Amino acid sequence: MTREADRQLGIVGLGKMGANLALQCVDKGIPVIGTALHKKPELEKQGVETTGDYDEFTAALRSPRVVYLSLPAGSTIDNVLGKLLPRFSQGDVIMDGGNSFFRDSMRREKEVAQNGIYYLDTGTSGGLDGARNGACFMVGGPEEGVKIVEPLLKKLAVPGGFVYTGAPGSGHFVKLVHNGIEFGMLQAIGEGMSLLTGGDFKLDLAAVFENWRHGSIVRGLLVDLMAEGLKKDTFEDIQPYIEDTGEVNWLVMEAVKKEIPIPVISQSVMELFASRGAGKDTYRAIALMRHGFGGHPFGPDEYIQNERKTSRIFKL
Amino acid sequence: MTREADRQLGIVGLGKMGANLALQCVDKGIPVIGTALHKKPELEKQGVETTGDYDEFTAALRSPRVVYLSLPAGSTIDNVLGKLLPRFSQGDVIMDGGNSFFRDSMRREKEVAQNGIYYLDTGTSGGLDGARNGACFMVGGPEEGVKIVEPLLKKLAVPGGFVYTGAPGSGHFVKLVHNGIEFGMLQAIGEGMSLLTGGDFKLDLAAVFENWRHGSIVRGLLVDLMAEGLKKDTFEDIQPYIEDTGEVNWLVMEAVKKEIPIPVISQSVMELFASRGAGKDTYRAIALMRHGFGGHPFGPDEYIQNERKTSRIFKL
Repeated sequence: MTREADRQLGIVGLGKMGANLALQCVDKGIPVIGTALHKKPELEKQGVETTGDYDEFTAALRSPRVVYLSLPAGSTIDNVLGKLLPRFSQGDVIMDGGNSFFRDSMRREKEVAQNGIYYLDTGTSGGLDGARNGACFMVGGPEEGVKIVEPLLKKLAVPGGFVYTGAPGSGHFVKLVHNGIEFGMLQAIGEGMSLLTGGDFKLDLAAVFENWRHGSIVRGLLVDLMAEGLKKDTFEDIQPYIEDTGEVNWLVMEAVKKEIPIPVISQSVMELFASRGAGKDTYRAIALMRHGFGGHPFGPDEYIQNERKTSRIFKL
Repeated sequence: MTREADRQLGIVGLGKMGANLALQCVDKGIPVIGTALHKKPELEKQGVETTGDYDEFTAALRSPRVVYLSLPAGSTIDNVLGKLLPRFSQGDVIMDGGNSFFRDSMRREKEVAQNGIYYLDTGTSGGLDGARNGACFMVGGPEEGVKIVEPLLKKLAVPGGFVYTGAPGSGHFVKLVHNGIEFGMLQAIGEGMSLLTGGDFKLDLAAVFENWRHGSIVRGLLVDLMAEGLKKDTFEDIQPYIEDTGEVNWLVMEAVKKEIPIPVISQSVMELFASRGAGKDTYRAIALMRHGFGGHPFGPDEYIQNERKTSRIFKL
């Protein structure tokens, strides 16, 4: 058995999250071996041993092997498990640190457990800064496996940023709910911005968000990020388009399955779709019907637009 | 002119917010004179001079008088202004620290300015803890008036928790948008709780929220309050009913007037109404129509309920 102080971490996937977690390991004196599709000389230079070969990767890790997958959700995880499982031994630990659907993690845990290997769904929050400087981990899976990695994860977490959530899948479930809450918060802050810019006052937006960081009820990381971002980027130049990795879609589907009303989280997801231009046919259809019953024109009605500008009286 | 170090603060209204702000003044060596409908012997004991009489109140304040109104929005503010204005002199400053509608504040500023008195809409965030230990102020109004109170407000704010937002009304406008964002965040976190309790896992809710305080993306005051609250109160015993003071309603009306889409903030407001039992007639009407076209029963359909419980297949 490896002494705790020597505990190595293997990381599969050296993208933005995996690379930053690896660098945090170097900072904290945790021996780290990474593997990725491509060599990462810039990480090697900073002390992260990397290999593109699963045999080398497996051989470099002492038993029990402890591996953290930093990979996109979906079939990639199953492909990588297909490579690791034949090479790994009883008592090894595989953590899925990505945003896998918790029901997939429950299935994978069962499969991996048949090899005597611990599979831990390790929800990881905190973004790139968290990976680099101290993250927030929500870990589900067999308790004996969690005990092996707990000291290591606590080193890589900010103080208090480790929780054992219980049964397999629960870590990814809790992380998924976290992400749903995050989407609702993002949308609420975003709508607040539209109100600030669309109101009657000429406001220093950066100063307002900077103020809200200090002592307000909405203070927190997202308001911090807005305040910092407004200092760096020209707000008007940002494309009004939101990309996402789609995992909160699962949460909406789960809510429908469980019949739990989550109007704001659902709406936040729908707003992402709308930002990408989806939903235009809704507006076309409404325009078509209004044209049909009221002779309303297609496109802006100059008369009504002008009326609104001058009278501010609500008219259809 | 009073020296800055001697600057007194008069507080009108010694409710939860006003009383705590007064106590903060005492802590920070700011001479404070409060006035309220009823005597507050418990505040007197802690060093807050109080009076129920506007003549005494006015006489106790040195020129230029600086007064902070801690009052509910609406006619109370106009009533109090009716009492203060005849007693106050040119150069005095009246701050409205409550959640008045910003258009009311714009109107009041014009009226008060006719007496040569500065009227500052002083949006105040941070709740009771902020009032007691350091708040967040968003101040609109004439710049000369703001300059008089800025050192005082900075003493009563947490570091960074003071912003001058510009024209009269802008402070209350920014505070109103803040409150709208707050409502969206509250609803998002609330829905997250329903997902946590309604899911397949037995979770330690207090431990999950405690974890989210540390390093997660959703970290911030509201998650702090959830984590602390869950340690103190039995969650199931809390009435699922939300009281509010209604100011975010104005924000929704303002958004309609300006035609700014704020689906999540609006929905959050609607959810407050629903929590109070409003909206039941919607459900009754839907049940009535479904009964009409499909013979669906009034109330739960035992057969469908059982089907759902056993099959988890979505059925209408």
